[in-house]
Parts: sequence; C-alpha cells; structure tokens
Amino acid sequence: MKHAAILIIIALCLFWGCKGQTDNQTDGLLVLKEQGSFSVGGTIIQNPGTYDANKFDNFKPYPDGQTFHGDHAYVFYQIPDNSRKYPLVFLHGAGQSARTWETTADGREGFQNIFSRRRFSTYLVDQPRRGKAGRSTVAATIEPIADEQMWYEIFRIGIWPNYFDNVQFPRDKKSLENFFRQMTPNTGGFDANVITNSMVELFNKIGQGILITHSQGGLPGWFAGVKSSNVKAIVSYEPGTYLFPEGELPEPITGRTGVLSGIEIPMADFKKLTQIPIVLYFGDNIGKEVSNDLGAENWRTRLALGRLFVEAINRHGGDATLVELPEIGIYGNTHFLMSDLNNIEIADLLSDWMKEKGLD
Amino acid sequence: MKHAAILIIIALCLFWGCKGQTDNQTDGLLVLKEQGSFSVGGTIIQNPGTYDANKFDNFKPYPDGQTFHGDHAYVFYQIPDNSRKYPLVFLHGAGQSARTWETTADGREGFQNIFSRRRFSTYLVDQPRRGKAGRSTVAATIEPIADEQMWYEIFRIGIWPNYFDNVQFPRDKKSLENFFRQMTPNTGGFDANVITNSMVELFNKIGQGILITHSQGGLPGWFAGVKSSNVKAIVSYEPGTYLFPEGELPEPITGRTGVLSGIEIPMADFKKLTQIPIVLYFGDNIGKEVSNDLGAENWRTRLALGRLFVEAINRHGGDATLVELPEIGIYGNTHFLMSDLNNIEIADLLSDWMKEKGLD
Repeated sequence: MKHAAILIIIALCLFWGCKGQTDNQTDGLLVLKEQGSFSVGGTIIQNPGTYDANKFDNFKPYPDGQTFHGDHAYVFYQIPDNSRKYPLVFLHGAGQSARTWETTADGREGFQNIFSRRRFSTYLVDQPRRGKAGRSTVAATIEPIADEQMWYEIFRIGIWPNYFDNVQFPRDKKSLENFFRQMTPNTGGFDANVITNSMVELFNKIGQGILITHSQGGLPGWFAGVKSSNVKAIVSYEPGTYLFPEGELPEPITGRTGVLSGIEIPMADFKKLTQIPIVLYFGDNIGKEVSNDLGAENWRTRLALGRLFVEAINRHGGDATLVELPEIGIYGNTHFLMSDLNNIEIADLLSDWMKEKGLD
Repeated sequence: MKHAAILIIIALCLFWGCKGQTDNQTDGLLVLKEQGSFSVGGTIIQNPGTYDANKFDNFKPYPDGQTFHGDHAYVFYQIPDNSRKYPLVFLHGAGQSARTWETTADGREGFQNIFSRRRFSTYLVDQPRRGKAGRSTVAATIEPIADEQMWYEIFRIGIWPNYFDNVQFPRDKKSLENFFRQMTPNTGGFDANVITNSMVELFNKIGQGILITHSQGGLPGWFAGVKSSNVKAIVSYEPGTYLFPEGELPEPITGRTGVLSGIEIPMADFKKLTQIPIVLYFGDNIGKEVSNDLGAENWRTRLALGRLFVEAINRHGGDATLVELPEIGIYGNTHFLMSDLNNIEIADLLSDWMKEKGLD
C-alpha cells in the first residue's frame, strides 16, 4: 500500500513533468527545440573595377571592385519541442516588420507566442528592404513625416481622436504610442517581385508550410503560392490586392483612398492557387457603402475585390473562404486582427480552420 | 521488488523530465518562461496645425496636426525558466542590429542562445534608427554603395580576398555572404545621446542588469553606465571609443583609418564607471605597429586608447580589465568575437568573469 501511494505520487509528478516538456499551451513555459535567424533570397551588386585598400579616406566609400549584398529577407524562427507537421510563415504588411506578430501594443502575447504554444514552428519575416533586412539595392530617402493620425483611421482604430465604440484596441495612451512605434520605414522601394522571390527561397529552404500574410503582404503571398509548391495553404488577414486569371480581371473599384485594381496572371499560374486551401479574414467597421471615413473606405474596396478573388478561385475548382468577422458575431476588429484585444479568439478561428483542412 | 524496480524507473524518468524543464544547457531544449518585444525611449514630433482627414490624396502625406513617434529602441527579450539574477542586455555595433547576437553566419548558435541556455535573461536591442526601430526623427538617404571588401578588412577577417591564416571565421562562400547580409543601414544619423537615452530607459524598465556592447555600441554603453545606476557591469567587445575625466583626456591617436579621440566628461560622471566591474575584450591580428592593413590599424588605435581608458578607471579606484585574447593563448578572433568559430570559448570567458565578479 505504501509503495502504491508513492507510485501514484511519482506518476502524477511525472505526468506534470512530461507535460512541461511537450505541451506548450497549458503550463506557461515555452519549450523550444531550436531557434535562430538567417537571411534568404536577395541579390549581389558587383561594382566594376578593382578593390584597392589604399583608396581609403575616413570610411568614405570607394566602391571600385566591391560588392553589395541586398534585397534578402531576414527570418527569425522557433521550433517548439514536438512540433506539428507544417511550420507557419508570417509576412507583415506596409510600414511594419515581424514585430506585427510579436507582443501586442498593450503587452499581451501575439501570434508568435500563441502558435508556438500550440506547437507550430514559426518563421517571422522582415521582408527585403525593411527592419533587419535593410540593405536595399535601390536607394531611398526617409523623412520623418507626421502621418500617424492618418494611419489611426486607415487601420480602423476610430475616427481621430475618437475610438470606435466597439473597437478591439486598448484605449490607454501608452498602448497607442507602442502601436505607432511598431512602424518602421522602407529602406528601398516596395517591390512585390523582390519580396516574392525571397519568400519562394524561404519555402525552398524550409520545405512545406503554411503562409500567413497581413495587408500589403497579401500580394507577394499570392505570388509565392503561385511560384512555390511548398506553400500548402495561405491565410491572409485583410490583404491589399489580388491575382486574377487573364481575361477575368474585374473592373477597378474606386473609393476615397484610391482606385483598386487586381493583377492579371496566366491561367496556368492562377490554377496553382486552386490547389491549396485559402482563407481571408476581414475585421469590423468596414464600409458597406461609400462614406467619408478613410478606414471604412480603404477596406470596403479591398473587401469587395477580395470577394471577387474568392469567387474566381472557387469558380476554377479551388477552396477559398472569406470570413467577415462581424457576420459570425465577432465585432470591433481593427486592421490588425492578430494583435487586437480578442487575438486569442482570432487565433482559435485559424486553429479551427487548419484542423478542418487537415493542416495541423 | 517489482514495485522497487518500477519506482527506480519512474524516478529516473522524473529526473530527466525535471532536468528538461530547469536546465537549459544540457538537454538541447530552450525552456522559456516568457518572451516578447517592446519599444523603449524615443520622442514624439507634434506637427503644428489641425489634422483633417479630408486632406487625403492617395496616401500623400499631409502632416498638419499629425504626430510622428521615433528614435525609440526595439528590444526582443527572453526569460528562461529559473533565470539568474541579472539579465544581459546586448547592444550591437555600426551597420549591425540585434542579429549580431543571434545565429552565426555559418549557422551556429550565437550569444542569444548560448546565454539563454546558461539561464540568463537576454534583451537584444535594435538601437534607435536601426533595424526594427527604424522610425527616425531626422531624415536619411540610403544608397546601395558597394563597401563589403572594406568591411571584410576593417572587421579583420583577412586582407581581401585572403583570409588570415589563423582566422576564426568560416571560409565557405555562403557564410561570408550571410555575414555581409547581417548589415543593415542607419535610417537616421548615428546619435550616441539618442541611443544612450533609450538604453537608460531600458534599464529603468527592467531594473538591474549587465550591459554587453559591441564596437560602436561601446560609447553609448559607457554613457549608459554613467547615467543609469541599474547598469551593474559593462562588458565591451572591441569598443569604438571611450570616456575620460575632464583634464585627463589623452592625446588623439592617429592611424590609417582616422584620428581617434576620447570624450571628456565631468569627474563626478566618470566616477560612476569606477563603481561597477568592467571588462573589454579584443581579438587577434590587431597591429602592434603602424602598418597599411586597415583592420590592424583601425583596432591598433582603439586598443591603445582602450588601455588608457582602463588605466584611468583603475587609477580612480575602479575595476576594469582589458583582455587581449592572443595574450591568453586565444588566436584568430575577428572583430566579431561573439560569433567567431570559437564563440563558445569566448562565452566561457565571459561566464568565468561574471562568476568571478559575483554577477551570475
């Protein structure tokens, strides 16, 4: 009897111990098998001439015969213990970096931690010419132009200086400041091809995985799905624009923030996107009709074109879903669904979808 | 007997299980209690005028009444399970970012992982106007000027295109390419005060810790030691320049790469640096005499001034040590000691020093 009692106690301890090592979700510890960073993709400028170390004057550049490596992406990855089959690759949007997926503006866990705890390997990208991947093969001028009230509205936090009544964004001053400080500029012009190439190289390197994009990252994401057979699914949070097959390009859609067009690609390429499951998520406070609200307008057009994209995918035999969160009873999401106050609920939706598609 | 055997087996399993949770060094798993990122420091530009959302023309900026948050640092942190008393704060050098401390160019673990496995909390900084902390309150123009052969020499990998015979740098082409791709540009002019302020704010936020700097990060590191009583020790890998008390500034030292001066500060400020243990490490292939080798020359002067700095600290009652690695039998280190082929040995030196100083 005494032995049996000790056995039970030890067995319980053992159970908790093993849980700590294999299940990241329940006990608070993140247990990683591996983490690190690397560059992927990019090109090399070889300047003509011959390098001569004698041409040196107080670090003034003499490019003769020298090289410049640029236009690569930077990737930080974490592989949890006992990880699931497909890694998740995260590509940020305009003016952002991999930070988009890290700690939220009010200090909660972002998708990096949430999905690591769910035992997915995560690959967080700084796209070429952004963040830690700053060496660009094209020049740029960066100026401190005050623009944050515009982004506040475009990102659907509210109508400055007010918050939307139902907004899933923290209302304290410090959180808004943190949110603004997440932005980081282009160090060279945005080039969807350059970004796509780096994403294709990333999937060449890591093998099959699921691509998760946000906003402006949507377009290079679709291109990566066309160009890499290792992209097994695409999840897109409020993408900027879309691909359509040749001859099926919808009329451009006009709104207060501009004229939105899709991009035509050969049918054979478009068909690649019909071979993988695709899901798009859109948040709240997006205009149903034309209005004067920048955020409502900007995403009204992008949502409308997204509906046509999903129709085109499915018309050609694909499996695309567009989720408008208010229509399933989830209200108040900004453009940054993955860091909103209800981001666990948003992550749960994604987990459910991956499970449904046999991707987890 | 049967019960006893089962008990032993379960006890062994339990032992391994517990080890997996609490000792990061021996079993390959990184066990983290917490990880995340945040901004710290920085300023806000408030543009005069009134924000008007009607002034919108295809994302052309109308700064009237808008704000711009910039000049903060970006910090990524990891707190291992059962972490040691003092966190380590890592500040990179010129043209670099926090990547400096992550995976090495040939794919080995950098100081981030090495010291996390040794149960130190790590805080990796992208300094203001660099990497993910790109929003700068001053403008910058970034051009793709080929300069890598110069850096190859300045960083003491060899004399282009040759490697130093004893160099602790991987000799394959891919590693060199990865190394070049670690660089990322300033998105605003280097400003030691701006960086110092963000480091002081970081130590305000996290409390007492050990500051580890590399190269150009050395100078804001010394200033942070003066300005924040939470800096309990400074470790500096090949710092760029140094502080001296008023009236004790050494003569500038001239070399092929420029004229190197220290910076004068009030004695009361300098005395702050005599209250904490300080260690400087320098690698190999640094010139003993004047030569034509850019790398040997650049670090000959900075090492010489470093000796005078250490003398000044100790003359005023402090505890500073300068370690020239070849003098203790460690050869071939480049300017990037912490990612060289022998970086475990370099990390061991630091661990020993922290132990000796009662810092671990």
